[in-house]
Amino acid sequence: MNREYIAQAHGVLGDEHSFVHLVDTMPSSEWNEGITNADRRIVEAARVSIAGEEVRAVHDEKKLIQYLLKNKHTSPFEHVRFTFHVRLPIFIARQWIRHRHGSFNEESARYGKLANDFYIPTMARMLKGGQAKKNKQGSGAELSEQVAQYAINQITAESVGTYNKYEALLEAGVAREIARMVLPTNIYTQWFWTTDLWNLMHFLRLRLHTHAQWEVRQYAEAILRQVSTIVPFAMEAFALHIYSEESS
Amino acid sequence: MNREYIAQAHGVLGDEHSFVHLVDTMPSSEWNEGITNADRRIVEAARVSIAGEEVRAVHDEKKLIQYLLKNKHTSPFEHVRFTFHVRLPIFIARQWIRHRHGSFNEESARYGKLANDFYIPTMARMLKGGQAKKNKQGSGAELSEQVAQYAINQITAESVGTYNKYEALLEAGVAREIARMVLPTNIYTQWFWTTDLWNLMHFLRLRLHTHAQWEVRQYAEAILRQVSTIVPFAMEAFALHIYSEESS
Amino acid sequence: MNREYIAQAHGVLGDEHSFVHLVDTMPSSEWNEGITNADRRIVEAARVSIAGEEVRAVHDEKKLIQYLLKNKHTSPFEHVRFTFHVRLPIFIARQWIRHRHGSFNEESARYGKLANDFYIPTMARMLKGGQAKKNKQGSGAELSEQVAQYAINQITAESVGTYNKYEALLEAGVAREIARMVLPTNIYTQWFWTTDLWNLMHFLRLRLHTHAQWEVRQYAEAILRQVSTIVPFAMEAFALHIYSEESS
Amino acid sequence: MNREYIAQAHGVLGDEHSFVHLVDTMPSSEWNEGITNADRRIVEAARVSIAGEEVRAVHDEKKLIQYLLKNKHTSPFEHVRFTFHVRLPIFIARQWIRHRHGSFNEESARYGKLANDFYIPTMARMLKGGQAKKNKQGSGAELSEQVAQYAINQITAESVGTYNKYEALLEAGVAREIARMVLPTNIYTQWFWTTDLWNLMHFLRLRLHTHAQWEVRQYAEAILRQVSTIVPFAMEAFALHIYSEESS
Repeated sequence: MNREYIAQAHGVLGDEHSFVHLVDTMPSSEWNEGITNADRRIVEAARVSIAGEEVRAVHDEKKLIQYLLKNKHTSPFEHVRFTFHVRLPIFIARQWIRHRHGSFNEESARYGKLANDFYIPTMARMLKGGQAKKNKQGSGAELSEQVAQYAINQITAESVGTYNKYEALLEAGVAREIARMVLPTNIYTQWFWTTDLWNLMHFLRLRLHTHAQWEVRQYAEAILRQVSTIVPFAMEAFALHIYSEESS
Repeated sequence: MNREYIAQAHGVLGDEHSFVHLVDTMPSSEWNEGITNADRRIVEAARVSIAGEEVRAVHDEKKLIQYLLKNKHTSPFEHVRFTFHVRLPIFIARQWIRHRHGSFNEESARYGKLANDFYIPTMARMLKGGQAKKNKQGSGAELSEQVAQYAINQITAESVGTYNKYEALLEAGVAREIARMVLPTNIYTQWFWTTDLWNLMHFLRLRLHTHAQWEVRQYAEAILRQVSTIVPFAMEAFALHIYSEESS
Repeated sequence: MNREYIAQAHGVLGDEHSFVHLVDTMPSSEWNEGITNADRRIVEAARVSIAGEEVRAVHDEKKLIQYLLKNKHTSPFEHVRFTFHVRLPIFIARQWIRHRHGSFNEESARYGKLANDFYIPTMARMLKGGQAKKNKQGSGAELSEQVAQYAINQITAESVGTYNKYEALLEAGVAREIARMVLPTNIYTQWFWTTDLWNLMHFLRLRLHTHAQWEVRQYAEAILRQVSTIVPFAMEAFALHIYSEESS
Repeated sequence: MNREYIAQAHGVLGDEHSFVHLVDTMPSSEWNEGITNADRRIVEAARVSIAGEEVRAVHDEKKLIQYLLKNKHTSPFEHVRFTFHVRLPIFIARQWIRHRHGSFNEESARYGKLANDFYIPTMARMLKGGQAKKNKQGSGAELSEQVAQYAINQITAESVGTYNKYEALLEAGVAREIARMVLPTNIYTQWFWTTDLWNLMHFLRLRLHTHAQWEVRQYAEAILRQVSTIVPFAMEAFALHIYSEESS
């Protein structure tokens, strides 16, 4: 399936280190009789629970999916599952894993040596990388080009410098599990993440929010784009009934 | 995919009311280069987390899967998912749903009228349907043919009789959500159940156990048979390292 | 702590079989400096995560709790825990256990013989026990006194009759796990239920809803009353920001 | 309740930055009639589910708790809950949060500035801090005093140096959520963690294991000591039936 390089899509994350790769879905995105197999599964699951007239009466499956989401009948959405392969900096991974419902397999810095890949913000990102005043947890205030460049240089130098120390410690015989503790949280990790559509919607609602960190929003937007081709009716219902704030 | 009528397979559950139908899997059961896609996903997920030498060194994927399960590295197994459509009596459903990790969509007796389908034990089942003495929670003691027949007759009469009362209450205008309370727990319900391979193994370990009720074991055995064609290497590892007690 | 007999409180559930008993809370309901210990825990947990100025600046803890819930910062509410002992008919238990986040220990009909206790609707309940037309899943339509009495008589007779058959089967030597399948779902079971405040709010939001079955709403209302003395500020915030529909 | 400074207990973690503080338990550790309230809750919960003779027959509550754990009747243990306040380096926090069942409230580096506290291994730790050969994921091989001192110096210098850069970025107006990405994973974070006894046992089984990283084992051992005074019978059963490997 498709692997989306967030950098190429947005020109901001700096290179191909960051990606969201939709590895698999259950069911598939194939269209049959005006609906994808994945969207149809939602209807099938709903028809098991509300086997009565009401559901049968709704001939329009798109409307039924909207009805379900609007009325918080969320369990049918749990039968659609996705597996993603994601490469992301540790500070983003730490926000992501707060969503406890998924299954994660993350690269281990105890088993193997981490690669020399760090997330470095671009100039475009840094120009709006000042501390926000109202939103204590965010950025958004404008920085001068000089300060932005200074920050980029510092982050880059720090990344290069600590990676050298990491390698020196390993060469001296220090265990990987100890040496890695000097690495900063903008180093890249990667994982397999499997989740269901309802929990994915919950993730998207929080991580597309303007209060979410800009970097995690890039991932959330890539996921939204990829998932929208699998369950287009469900994601339209999501836009209508769950996600109503602007995302930037 | 396949729908297994437990009755046809075992000649015991009495008719076609009871079934386990494997609706979907992620990934598929297709074989490629000596391994199914579903078994290979376990290896792929493990390779993300332990990206180092060790895993690469194990050329034999079957052995790697056994190594993972033996050492309780269970997270790679969570990326394989299954959806089942199951028809089962309420008293079994109540045991099943104690496994909280799955996604369930069950037929609602508030939305619709339940069908006139009841689980009636066969003579073969009832001949061993006496109260076990040592195992307080089970059956297994032998009953005379006379007592067994008496029990079958009583359960059948009770099922027929209460269904008539259920219908009479509905015809009098009583709400479905109230009328259904007279129905006994051997009436059939049905659901969609989606779970992952690791939680499925946990379900099987408990529900294949000799202490589990005989009826739920028939379902567990049908699931075991169906899943074994999807992830044959994983289920062989399960038999070796998780499930070692005899199942009957 | 307090045990609330739903029957005594409402005069409807018929007798003392139904109860909600708040067994324990963490922290306690004791007041200290204008706030209960349990409400204060929410603030303490929030102060760990947003250790910065913002939280310190809010001197009014009641307002902070409202701010947290309004902005869906729900994790601090998970540190408040409750254990309930509940006696309830099986058809209600089956709705309740759909909330997968709690810990349940339910009476087993395999280990022991169930008591001769059944839920019988009162006349007041049955007069509004007709099948609702608009809300397919509910009751609410009026029944004549004659039909209501007929329904009560039928449910009572059925309960008495099947319990006799249950006992006869047990006396004939049939295993408890088999004999119990004739028992209807208005027989009483009981369980210990431990959950956290955020998941409890989710339970209450759904089970206080007018679309929930009348019987489960009586339980939800009893829980709401009991919890309100433990975390009065949090439940006020719940009423403002989570639960805004009328409950009957 | 007690706050245990891991450093003081073991002389290894270097200072008072690291602690495990048992904030609250449900029920309490008070003794009544030969058993703590918390241990007794396990028995009470079990008595609800297996209301029959068997449990009543076991007069010795300590033996009943062992029987339950030995036979994997784990649900009664879920009704005992603990809240901990823990201060720990980020690389340990990332291992810990893999246990998805708890409730976490972690200090946010977006809301506030992180304190100048880093985990620095002691000489005793570093002398065994070489890369293990057999156990790819661990340490344990001996290092010379010279190499150990070199590693300690490097880790210390790196911690001091990056914290200076972190502060310089903040002073230049860079947002906290960006500046923090240069900080290494041996910087301290803190959280509230609430979990139940059964999931705590699962945590301890994995994190007391010799394959677990030495640093997280210090936390697990502190938790084991603290919990053992609350549920002494349960932890004795844990030692007998769940945890049988040596922990170092």
